[in-house]
Amino acid sequence: MFPMLYKAVQGINSRSVNATVTETRVRYAETDQMGVAYHANYLVWCEMGRTDFIRQHIKSYAEVERDGVALAVSEANVRYHSAARYDELLRIHTTLTDVRSRALTFSYLISRVADDEKLASATTTLVALGSNHRPISIPAELRARLEAVAGP
Amino acid sequence: MFPMLYKAVQGINSRSVNATVTETRVRYAETDQMGVAYHANYLVWCEMGRTDFIRQHIKSYAEVERDGVALAVSEANVRYHSAARYDELLRIHTTLTDVRSRALTFSYLISRVADDEKLASATTTLVALGSNHRPISIPAELRARLEAVAGP
Amino acid sequence: MFPMLYKAVQGINSRSVNATVTETRVRYAETDQMGVAYHANYLVWCEMGRTDFIRQHIKSYAEVERDGVALAVSEANVRYHSAARYDELLRIHTTLTDVRSRALTFSYLISRVADDEKLASATTTLVALGSNHRPISIPAELRARLEAVAGP
Amino acid sequence: MFPMLYKAVQGINSRSVNATVTETRVRYAETDQMGVAYHANYLVWCEMGRTDFIRQHIKSYAEVERDGVALAVSEANVRYHSAARYDELLRIHTTLTDVRSRALTFSYLISRVADDEKLASATTTLVALGSNHRPISIPAELRARLEAVAGP
Repeated sequence: MFPMLYKAVQGINSRSVNATVTETRVRYAETDQMGVAYHANYLVWCEMGRTDFIRQHIKSYAEVERDGVALAVSEANVRYHSAARYDELLRIHTTLTDVRSRALTFSYLISRVADDEKLASATTTLVALGSNHRPISIPAELRARLEAVAGP
Repeated sequence: MFPMLYKAVQGINSRSVNATVTETRVRYAETDQMGVAYHANYLVWCEMGRTDFIRQHIKSYAEVERDGVALAVSEANVRYHSAARYDELLRIHTTLTDVRSRALTFSYLISRVADDEKLASATTTLVALGSNHRPISIPAELRARLEAVAGP
Repeated sequence: MFPMLYKAVQGINSRSVNATVTETRVRYAETDQMGVAYHANYLVWCEMGRTDFIRQHIKSYAEVERDGVALAVSEANVRYHSAARYDELLRIHTTLTDVRSRALTFSYLISRVADDEKLASATTTLVALGSNHRPISIPAELRARLEAVAGP
Repeated sequence: MFPMLYKAVQGINSRSVNATVTETRVRYAETDQMGVAYHANYLVWCEMGRTDFIRQHIKSYAEVERDGVALAVSEANVRYHSAARYDELLRIHTTLTDVRSRALTFSYLISRVADDEKLASATTTLVALGSNHRPISIPAELRARLEAVAGP
């Protein structure tokens, strides 16, 4: 079912065999008085995609946190192309595009399922924090598993 | 400055000398496509009022938590009378209407500052939780201080 | 007063052939520093359940709004029994428990899928508003369709 | 690429006579289970800063919308430097750094009031939309007023 999606999306993401796909429906709570989804919610949807990516390829992020590694967003960039509206089904296409010793970068494409229109593209960079909330190197085993699923 | 407000609001709250008043402006993020503030946000505004009440009469709720007592909402009731709109300045009028061994009840009136129109009334009941998230009795000293500022 | 509600809610939902079930996973954005889902989010989940109920039994609520009828929440009551945590899958069980000329009441049970533990029960009452945001009677055809799926 | 942005943002804000300052306190609802403010909320705070900037220098954004011009976010970039925590008072420092025929760019610095620590820097670009939600040129009079308060 999903290979068709991969063809449909363009660019870097379409080549990644490790991309994950998450679907969500726009909630009334997420709309604003302009009649469209409020822009900050796209970062929440990216987080849903990231959570699914980590769960599918590594393990539940809740477990990652219990193991003493928190991933905190250090940078977020979103480009909005077209508006999402109430009750529309959205698809978040997530790839891990960079793994460094202390940071990861994920890329996202958010599209409308009904017509495959691209609504937004985004990247977020996350840094690893230890139990005291100080930056740490990503533990070697976790890093190896992340590198194995990082896309071009 | 606030006595006029107290006269304007009706019932229990208007008699409480310990009521606190919090103001907030409706954010664009808080509106929905009906063009008014989304109804779940009223619970957030109640929490702002409760935070101010506790800070003003006891100490910062952040300190209460650091002392090992969390207050978790166990029940919430809101009646919506009129809609709040984007950029309107709101006033949250908070009273502590009941103190028991393990629970507190706060009452709120939310009104629009411009015309003093009542927008919503609400109550929330909170239970005390210890550091392991299990219900505990409210520590005696904290309870005494809360009882001293509870309204009729 | 609430024990009766309890009996009513539990009984109604388990017997209602028209109940709908919605699932959602707790987002990181929905947690708070107590480590559990923030209480106002339960009203958002209720709205998701209500949206699904209306879509399944009537038509998309987006269409209802386009037809000139908005349903605005006039009262909300939530009782919290146990905490929802990050990444847990939740189930929202929705029934329409009352239909009047100008208002509807929905009841909800929110439970954790993993162990079927009941997390919260809630009711919301909604009033019909016309295009100018004034209360109207629910149009006859819509009301008849709602009454047909209202549960005992 | 970003160091230049940094120099630009810091320089501009400190020199701009038209910068506006908005204060807000971190709400419990805005925290997440990491014990800090959830990252998407920074975009909401930027919007509060932008609303105040427009109100102070032009007129209420609510009036701008009623005049038939909506400003929709087309791009958002946030760099997070340090975490905001519950109940901390924050300051949002807003400047208008670019005005074009169809788009505006605002820059923001978010800092903690208690110790003046910089928590985040951000930019958002907004495009003008007409009543049918299609891109339009910013009306001449509005554009002239915006250019008059744009920072170097």
